[in-house]
Amino acid sequence: MKQDKNYLTARKILSHNIKRLREERELSQESLADLVGLHRTYIGSVERCERNISIDNIERIASVFDVSPSFLLGNNNK
Amino acid sequence: MKQDKNYLTARKILSHNIKRLREERELSQESLADLVGLHRTYIGSVERCERNISIDNIERIASVFDVSPSFLLGNNNK
Repeated sequence: MKQDKNYLTARKILSHNIKRLREERELSQESLADLVGLHRTYIGSVERCERNISIDNIERIASVFDVSPSFLLGNNNK
Repeated sequence: MKQDKNYLTARKILSHNIKRLREERELSQESLADLVGLHRTYIGSVERCERNISIDNIERIASVFDVSPSFLLGNNNK
């Protein structure tokens, strides 16, 4: 089976979507972290693609934005 | 902001999709684990929703199936 051309871009797509949703809702990294129940620096490290975030935390962030985890990992053209 | 109704179902959706794709391709958990480069018991624990899998491993599994991480976390009606 061949490798997906999107391989190892998941962190980048997630980062892009979190930043976009966060800015649309005029939330700071700290405000988002508070809503999700994570440390402020955690959101920063996810947005810098430094963190190998887990599925549970992806789901928590998606929940705060009222979107699905699948949406948060998707190439959403908007 | 309200909680997403899908909250905390991401592990279940992922498990369902991995099992479906694995069985469609007639792969054992062990064969899939070999293709992904993970231990055999790891795939089993993900399919039992026991493991808080990371984004990098979601992406590795998606890559073996030639689907996107977003697809692997999606409610795909097929």
